Amino acid sequence: MAQQINAPRGMRDFLPVEKAKREKLIQLAKEQYLARGFQEIETPVLEDISRLQSGQGGDNEKLVFKVQKRGEEFAQALQDGSELADLGLRFDLTVPLTRYYASNQGKLPRVLKAIQTGPVFRAERPQKGRYRQFIQCDIDIIGDDSMLAEFELISASLAALEAMGVQGAKIRVNHRELLTQSIAQLGVSGPDALSAMISIDKLDKVGIDGVSAELGEKFGAEVAGKASEWLSGIEKLEIPEVLRPLFDAFSDALRYDPTLVRGMGYYTGTIFEIEHPDSSSSIGGGGRYDGMVGKWLGTDVPAVGISLGIERIVDLVASPKDSTPGLVLLVSEDQPIERALEVQRSLISSWRVRLDRKPKNVKALLGELSEQGFTHFAFLPDSGELDIKPIA
Amino acid sequence: MAQQINAPRGMRDFLPVEKAKREKLIQLAKEQYLARGFQEIETPVLEDISRLQSGQGGDNEKLVFKVQKRGEEFAQALQDGSELADLGLRFDLTVPLTRYYASNQGKLPRVLKAIQTGPVFRAERPQKGRYRQFIQCDIDIIGDDSMLAEFELISASLAALEAMGVQGAKIRVNHRELLTQSIAQLGVSGPDALSAMISIDKLDKVGIDGVSAELGEKFGAEVAGKASEWLSGIEKLEIPEVLRPLFDAFSDALRYDPTLVRGMGYYTGTIFEIEHPDSSSSIGGGGRYDGMVGKWLGTDVPAVGISLGIERIVDLVASPKDSTPGLVLLVSEDQPIERALEVQRSLISSWRVRLDRKPKNVKALLGELSEQGFTHFAFLPDSGELDIKPIA
Repeated sequence: MAQQINAPRGMRDFLPVEKAKREKLIQLAKEQYLARGFQEIETPVLEDISRLQSGQGGDNEKLVFKVQKRGEEFAQALQDGSELADLGLRFDLTVPLTRYYASNQGKLPRVLKAIQTGPVFRAERPQKGRYRQFIQCDIDIIGDDSMLAEFELISASLAALEAMGVQGAKIRVNHRELLTQSIAQLGVSGPDALSAMISIDKLDKVGIDGVSAELGEKFGAEVAGKASEWLSGIEKLEIPEVLRPLFDAFSDALRYDPTLVRGMGYYTGTIFEIEHPDSSSSIGGGGRYDGMVGKWLGTDVPAVGISLGIERIVDLVASPKDSTPGLVLLVSEDQPIERALEVQRSLISSWRVRLDRKPKNVKALLGELSEQGFTHFAFLPDSGELDIKPIA
Repeated sequence: MAQQINAPRGMRDFLPVEKAKREKLIQLAKEQYLARGFQEIETPVLEDISRLQSGQGGDNEKLVFKVQKRGEEFAQALQDGSELADLGLRFDLTVPLTRYYASNQGKLPRVLKAIQTGPVFRAERPQKGRYRQFIQCDIDIIGDDSMLAEFELISASLAALEAMGVQGAKIRVNHRELLTQSIAQLGVSGPDALSAMISIDKLDKVGIDGVSAELGEKFGAEVAGKASEWLSGIEKLEIPEVLRPLFDAFSDALRYDPTLVRGMGYYTGTIFEIEHPDSSSSIGGGGRYDGMVGKWLGTDVPAVGISLGIERIVDLVASPKDSTPGLVLLVSEDQPIERALEVQRSLISSWRVRLDRKPKNVKALLGELSEQGFTHFAFLPDSGELDIKPIA
């Protein structure tokens, strides 16, 4: 019998108009990546649970949806009180990518320029703007330790943002080693540096005084004082040597931010975060993670990537224009369907043609389909020319 | 440290060339569907486990990957010995589609013509050609009880197959009610009919004698005799009235098969199965399932769909030609990257342009990238024209 029925909590159904917008935006980004010689790859939605809980994924590892063992193995595990899950849903595309590279290295080009788009899953407490399933759209270059990789990622990302209609985005850039040095100069180093980074990461939210106070609580008044001085002067800091070439090439699109942290522990070099004046949180980010492939492979392989926050970009831009307008072709009960299909076929190069039975209330149907993006209609004529009219 | 590392058992990584082929084929099919006014929708990869075990999915319900409850709820369930899973990975796109229609009916056009593409999951014993994660590509029309829906699905599916380069496919057609009548004439009816269908479904594998023998074991010699007679005469059976209009319109593309069963219990009317001479199993199928939406909604809504077996079609056809050829642009260490990016941008409308550092062994690099589908190369000139050559 009838019951209230919904998508699982924190997950979404996409209505046709929303889905069309998402698909078009992703397609526009992918076209820019493909045009630059990036190649699409795919990994399974599931990974062995051990890979998802290997310490690479930071806090996301706590948010894994775990998949139960099956049959005998499940019964045995239940009896033993041992681990009941053997698989998990991926929480990002980076851990699977590094696993993929390690699994398939012999069959891949030495320098892999990868595009990955797909759903990722996090068992977060559902709240506004946070979903338990969402899309990531990543490009990564694996096997190139030179700055060429950073150049290409920035160039491709800016082109993708432009193609999607995102204007005014800036890429904040920093370097993990410089950040570590700055923190050392405050008097914090070794394992404490990460804790200091967590405090510095709150600068946007709590301001200079807030960060200094928090560092003071953690490491004492001297560190707090130095931090306050450092943070007050960052606007005037010169762009460091190592990042200079990027700023020479992309100048206006980049902003040097010596306090940029990026959450994940695996970053080793350049780090990026894409900001937009109309979005309170970042619309993309990434960085260099030279140690991560080595974790699986035993040999270090340089790697750097940028992920676009498609979920946020969808909210920032208007739906891209349909290249092919939508036409509703109305067919009476007594007209042969073959003829309707024939007319449909003949129109298809210039129109998307939807067939509908001519209902009693044509206006209501057209109103409904106009909301679905159809702009024109015509009645199937018994003979002669088709009379195509805009939906009023 | 180094370890043998793979995708989970029965699941696949896709290398760039494989992935490009898959994406292109799906894109070609989708274009045909979109051109006919179908609209893409999306549902989550996960559904509440109760929906996946509601008796709609036949044997597939036994193959659900179950997702564990989390936190307190999991601890509680473990203690109580109650159900440990609250979510599951979808085993097809039809159950989620009917759930989606029931959840969103008020926001959808009265007749929904839906395209769905996405991964589905079945915990089958891994074997050749069977995967635990695979792609389905479905079109469905919900809300139209007339034959127009069948016409459109067949027309769109044939166009999609043609666009993908599949030649010589035939759609076997039958009608569930006719099948039930035929079985009743053998002397089997009511709940036994389903068991008889399972036997008849084996005709391709075990032949007329095999099916008759099995029916004999189940229902006695008289049924076996009648079955043998019926099956021997099916080649000569006339196309029944109810299917006549479809055959008038699509003649050569269809084949009437009075023994066609289709596994799922939910079919109520026309059923389809797409066969191809080079594929031992079907490359698609579907049918009318008028009762299924009602299961969730409480009100019956007519529905019919066809699913293309993308995994099998990928093996049947050659990779569609690249519309944009691939060029490798080689950049020396001492050349400015900005210039390489500029040249790349200027070429992008007619080429996919991959940048690579000019290595010592250019031939090896080009050989490797030729395998990835790049056909041409050029050295970035310090000045003057670019000299584009085919990769030998």
